[in-house]
Amino acid sequence: MKEIIAMIRPKMMAKTKDILEKAGIASMTVLPVLGRGKQQGIADEVNIEYRPQILELKNRKMKYIPKRMISMVVQDDETETVVNALVEVNRTGQIGDGKIFVCPIDDVLRIRTGEVGEAAVV
Amino acid sequence: MKEIIAMIRPKMMAKTKDILEKAGIASMTVLPVLGRGKQQGIADEVNIEYRPQILELKNRKMKYIPKRMISMVVQDDETETVVNALVEVNRTGQIGDGKIFVCPIDDVLRIRTGEVGEAAVV
Amino acid sequence: MKEIIAMIRPKMMAKTKDILEKAGIASMTVLPVLGRGKQQGIADEVNIEYRPQILELKNRKMKYIPKRMISMVVQDDETETVVNALVEVNRTGQIGDGKIFVCPIDDVLRIRTGEVGEAAVV
Repeated sequence: MKEIIAMIRPKMMAKTKDILEKAGIASMTVLPVLGRGKQQGIADEVNIEYRPQILELKNRKMKYIPKRMISMVVQDDETETVVNALVEVNRTGQIGDGKIFVCPIDDVLRIRTGEVGEAAVV
Repeated sequence: MKEIIAMIRPKMMAKTKDILEKAGIASMTVLPVLGRGKQQGIADEVNIEYRPQILELKNRKMKYIPKRMISMVVQDDETETVVNALVEVNRTGQIGDGKIFVCPIDDVLRIRTGEVGEAAVV
Repeated sequence: MKEIIAMIRPKMMAKTKDILEKAGIASMTVLPVLGRGKQQGIADEVNIEYRPQILELKNRKMKYIPKRMISMVVQDDETETVVNALVEVNRTGQIGDGKIFVCPIDDVLRIRTGEVGEAAVV
């Protein structure tokens, strides 16, 4: 099993969710984060709802951009399909497209049923 | 050492904290997240404070449910005890009970003292 | 590649960002979390903006302290430098200095270019 973590543009969430659903990924966790890549943040793409937060950070000479972090746990052999799907909908070729991390997971347990491992991922 | 990440119902936090304390787990990190399992979200359990956010997501045809994410780092031989404690208080048998992930950790360092490894976990 | 996760005091963010920049770390993700160490939280350091949230948690007999979680992915041979830099600016010797976790990462992909592994970390 692997955990796939994608840091993407907030406005890409709807498309990303659609393609993941088509790829059979039903379970995921989403949270808003602030991120910075090597270009150190492009303020123009900042959604208005985050602007006060960004401005505050800027005054401290940081430039962080709101991102959505999506975390999914998948079977090993689903990893490539899911990563490709994430790239397909999130690549614009512009700075800020985001990154994908693949991390090892030792085990997963579904609390309701006690299922562990692959059975708990599906 | 292992990182144990539990995604649970927000209303289960108090009970969960109590049982973890009894199990000797004093250090943890908590954050609110939005999650979706294979049942794709049961809106009835949504806390009123999150309703606007949920409704907004629904309009985009997503159904995410507020969850609490708890992260703890434990010794290898504490893993089973902690996972069992988490299941004990969080299993209702209803959809939405959540999941537990066990992940490898290479090292831990307590910034104040410089302790690393097991000494930094306690 | 390693993921370095640091849980630090919110007020240490500016100094931490400066030293990481000097250490050549340009990409990171930041999020606010609530944490508790073995001392179970020292309320005096709580920033006023979080006070209602903390008070609410206290009524449930929990004492969580706002922390900033910073996540970076680095090359294996950068790990020690980055950890030392984090300790240098975040150690006050007082309870609440925080912790640093080092976790394995299988792969990283930059969505814009398709670069993977070390090329995607830089």
